[in-house]
Amino acid sequence: MSLASQMQIMLPAVEEELHSVVDRTTNSVYPELRGMLAYHLGWEGAGAGPEAQGKRIRPLLVLLCAQAGGGEWRNALPAAAGVELLHNFSLIHDDIQDNSPLRRGRDTVWKLWGVPQAINAGDVMFTQAFRALHCLGQTISASAALEAHRILEETCLKLTEGQYLDISFETRRLLPLEDYWSMIGGKTSALLGCCAELGALCAGVEDERRARFHEFGYSLGLAFQVLDDWLGIWGDASVIGKSTESDLVSGKKTFPVLYGLSRSPEFAQLWEAGGLKVEDVAQAVSLLESCGAGAVTLERAEELTHKALRALDQAVAEPQKADELKELTASLLKRKK
Amino acid sequence: MSLASQMQIMLPAVEEELHSVVDRTTNSVYPELRGMLAYHLGWEGAGAGPEAQGKRIRPLLVLLCAQAGGGEWRNALPAAAGVELLHNFSLIHDDIQDNSPLRRGRDTVWKLWGVPQAINAGDVMFTQAFRALHCLGQTISASAALEAHRILEETCLKLTEGQYLDISFETRRLLPLEDYWSMIGGKTSALLGCCAELGALCAGVEDERRARFHEFGYSLGLAFQVLDDWLGIWGDASVIGKSTESDLVSGKKTFPVLYGLSRSPEFAQLWEAGGLKVEDVAQAVSLLESCGAGAVTLERAEELTHKALRALDQAVAEPQKADELKELTASLLKRKK
Repeated sequence: MSLASQMQIMLPAVEEELHSVVDRTTNSVYPELRGMLAYHLGWEGAGAGPEAQGKRIRPLLVLLCAQAGGGEWRNALPAAAGVELLHNFSLIHDDIQDNSPLRRGRDTVWKLWGVPQAINAGDVMFTQAFRALHCLGQTISASAALEAHRILEETCLKLTEGQYLDISFETRRLLPLEDYWSMIGGKTSALLGCCAELGALCAGVEDERRARFHEFGYSLGLAFQVLDDWLGIWGDASVIGKSTESDLVSGKKTFPVLYGLSRSPEFAQLWEAGGLKVEDVAQAVSLLESCGAGAVTLERAEELTHKALRALDQAVAEPQKADELKELTASLLKRKK
Repeated sequence: MSLASQMQIMLPAVEEELHSVVDRTTNSVYPELRGMLAYHLGWEGAGAGPEAQGKRIRPLLVLLCAQAGGGEWRNALPAAAGVELLHNFSLIHDDIQDNSPLRRGRDTVWKLWGVPQAINAGDVMFTQAFRALHCLGQTISASAALEAHRILEETCLKLTEGQYLDISFETRRLLPLEDYWSMIGGKTSALLGCCAELGALCAGVEDERRARFHEFGYSLGLAFQVLDDWLGIWGDASVIGKSTESDLVSGKKTFPVLYGLSRSPEFAQLWEAGGLKVEDVAQAVSLLESCGAGAVTLERAEELTHKALRALDQAVAEPQKADELKELTASLLKRKK
């Protein structure tokens, strides 16, 4: 089946599972509390709809991996809901930590309900992520449910470690590339590795191949982030006359920037003068290109993509079972240019 | 054995278990992150020591209930660590939500490391609370570990519900007593009920008696909070010349205040004029006494104490096994006056 046809069947099932978890675990006596969660998940309030819900890539990855591992994807739905709730809990807290008033074009939870309620709404969703996993006891086995808890907990530890680094980086001028990998490893890749591993767990895949599934998701996450860093400087929106949207203006410490800081004294001088202005973007991009930052970034993304696909080949027992996952990988790692 | 002798054996074991969980789950590459947790737990930094660590009542309750239920208390140590970490996660987030610069006389985590890192440190400790439970798989059984997760998750849902109410109350002028019970039920009692239930679970107590253990902890929590409300107005510190420490000045919506608002129009008028001043305290106390708020508060605390002790009697198989728990109950529910 094509990825698109799979998504048409899987995504509504994910949404239904998410609704069921949220409704089961939120006291109906307090509709306002449930409302904050439903708003953040894109179900209710101003701007609700598919755009506000995001792409649900993570639950999709769980279900496709369960299927690729030879399992019945429906049995993995509790895990799919768990990872999406965990991802969204982290977004609610992220928005407070970054002081971001908007997410996907809508007011953030803290902007609407204030910081204290938003911290608490995040804590509720954090709990619901774990609560979701219990239904694996019915669809698979109690031991799978416990192991899923362990995997999700380990992932949260990595996620919060990445978040710690990300917040610390804001006040550090210099940053070795090593710390960059730890940061995106925790913030982005750990959860994608977890998704793939949970899918495999639900399919009853044995330990060695389950580790390959994890590696596939983890490398996919790294590749995705590095490519995203490239797009933030050389992507359509950044290049074609919209320098304001360039990551160089927001001051984000991305791979090409850190590479440039370590290789180009001229770029470092420009960057460290404090906050690039829109009129500096063209010069900064040209300095990054001269020291090879753009090319090296794309090269890293390519390497990581190959690493992910190699792990996927080792993970699945029959190659054709990985078709949809390869299609998903390709669609996530398009240069969009 | 007396409670004091029990505590001398149990509390160091709790501290050791807490250290082991925190050290096992915090990456040693980032000592600053571990430092925030160790600081909050009272192990490190300015003012570290027993005073800063708090009384560890919750883990003690887990261990004493495990013993009263006929189990080996050491097997319940992972659950004891779990509840203490959950309690402390909620304190870290609470301090941000309440904008409190001090806890137990020391700077709060957000005051020292800023709000973004403090939110994240709370999230780390939340994860560690669940991570702690996994060792029950070794001391008891995998199914007990999974059930412990379920119980702790249900407790978090109640806790965050109570927190939602508490934050909402700040902007509501009128508050029915019913909402007061829901709020303290979630914020204080749910976790104490959880402690007693987890202890019983670790002792292998059957469902019906386990529910009585839960009821014991839950009612104990309510009694404790109601008495604390009374002490906040009529306790030593509040009465003997230190009106500044009265709950009436901080504007807290406690049981006697809500009772007074519903029964004494004069008290309501004084209260709703906005923020009682130190010089109003004597008059407010006298109005509360006239409408019976003080007496009714003590009466409720007595009733709840009896309810807790009745549940405890039904929970334990042999009465003498409850001796230490009765001693703990008495020490928690002293009027201190």
